[in-house]
Amino acid sequence: MKTSRQQVLRWTEGSARRRGDELAVEEPLEIRIDTRPFVVTMRTPGHDEELAAGFLVTEGVIHSRNHLRAVRRNARNRTGNSIDVFLSAEPRIDLKNLTRHGFASSSCGLCGKESIRAVRRRLKSIRTRLSVDARIIAGLPERLHAAQPTFERTGGLHAAGVFTREGELVVAREDIGRHNAVDKVIGFGLLNDLLPFDNHILVVSGRASFEIMQKSLAARIPIVCAVSAPSSLAVEFARDSKQTLVGFLRENRMNVYAGKQRVDFSGE
Amino acid sequence: MKTSRQQVLRWTEGSARRRGDELAVEEPLEIRIDTRPFVVTMRTPGHDEELAAGFLVTEGVIHSRNHLRAVRRNARNRTGNSIDVFLSAEPRIDLKNLTRHGFASSSCGLCGKESIRAVRRRLKSIRTRLSVDARIIAGLPERLHAAQPTFERTGGLHAAGVFTREGELVVAREDIGRHNAVDKVIGFGLLNDLLPFDNHILVVSGRASFEIMQKSLAARIPIVCAVSAPSSLAVEFARDSKQTLVGFLRENRMNVYAGKQRVDFSGE
Repeated sequence: MKTSRQQVLRWTEGSARRRGDELAVEEPLEIRIDTRPFVVTMRTPGHDEELAAGFLVTEGVIHSRNHLRAVRRNARNRTGNSIDVFLSAEPRIDLKNLTRHGFASSSCGLCGKESIRAVRRRLKSIRTRLSVDARIIAGLPERLHAAQPTFERTGGLHAAGVFTREGELVVAREDIGRHNAVDKVIGFGLLNDLLPFDNHILVVSGRASFEIMQKSLAARIPIVCAVSAPSSLAVEFARDSKQTLVGFLRENRMNVYAGKQRVDFSGE
Repeated sequence: MKTSRQQVLRWTEGSARRRGDELAVEEPLEIRIDTRPFVVTMRTPGHDEELAAGFLVTEGVIHSRNHLRAVRRNARNRTGNSIDVFLSAEPRIDLKNLTRHGFASSSCGLCGKESIRAVRRRLKSIRTRLSVDARIIAGLPERLHAAQPTFERTGGLHAAGVFTREGELVVAREDIGRHNAVDKVIGFGLLNDLLPFDNHILVVSGRASFEIMQKSLAARIPIVCAVSAPSSLAVEFARDSKQTLVGFLRENRMNVYAGKQRVDFSGE
């Protein structure tokens, strides 16, 4: 991932010294659909085509590789921060269904349940009968961390990783925005014809929110694990969508908030 | 802050047990301006009037208490998740200036510098000649933590706190979204006629991004401290706006990324 080296004044135990420090880069990315500006998001540069493709999947614009004619950098924009997505004729884009960005219609009833229902109108429950050994799940944060070199240097990046049921890493991506890291791994899946991720496990480095659950459901991911806490709405979402949601996942502990039938504790 | 108690399956050191767990609540909040739907954001319920008022300040819709006629819960919405803001005739709302929410015009040149310039066109540099003892700054995370009871229970909330130059807490707020916590403390300032916070220090529990810097500049905050890493764009922003930006702030260390003249190391 792109980092930026800066001079800082470091104060430790009472003494101040100048030294170099590596920062996670944050820059805007414009995603255009058929050359029309669609969205601008702040992200860490790198894997931008995946971010764009993943964003369109997780926000419900496209559902399969066939919907995509091409994804490439907009060569006319000199900043390198503009990605062109060209769609095939087939999918109809319904901007009203996009839930992430705010300026809202109030058609939604504004309770958490209604937010879930709005997503569930376009995305069915997960039915995968998958069962993964608890000890495999417990080992995933370490594997994700090993695949996340930039965090070590900057302390400033979120990570998302997709793993097989055997605990093998499929792809890991970093970004200053957790939702972007999730979009990147799902975009990787789309561009490499690996979707749906319906026998897979998603691990995110921080917390699990409504948005993370919505994005994972769009990629049909049955098990979502967060290293930190889930929100109440993430848990409600997982129960409704029949996803498994694990929180506070560490080397030797986890909380299973929903879908516990997919976590196999029998090895104990 | 609102929390939700849930049954979870907790697995520790190889044994699984059911137990109760407290989660940070996440629910949508609609902000209406003069009864027109304006934005919906996911937030932790509590201090919603502050969140709405603060959001309008930090997104550049209003600049002072006078612009606000009233902020109150929309009694017609039974969920409690809708806030009505009534503006006085004076301010003109320019939706195009709102930088946070995505569906974008591409008027912006799409480099980080242009994102900063877009904000700086409406917000001047900070000129406050403030100097705060490094040891006072180093003690702020602990004070913020002490004012953040819900995090202890849920592990799921961000916090933002505004402090005086002497290190006294003015207000601390929690939310699942860091930007919401910042909007709440700034909204508190607006509603209690304490803005601008131009002799104050803002502390955020996590990372500092472009968005946090933009919001703090709107409230004229000269010193912004993050317990974790800043992004490259946050640092560029601070240098451009003449704000002081401190990162990795812990009890006995900090990195000063910009505006070091406001941190007094002479006590050593």
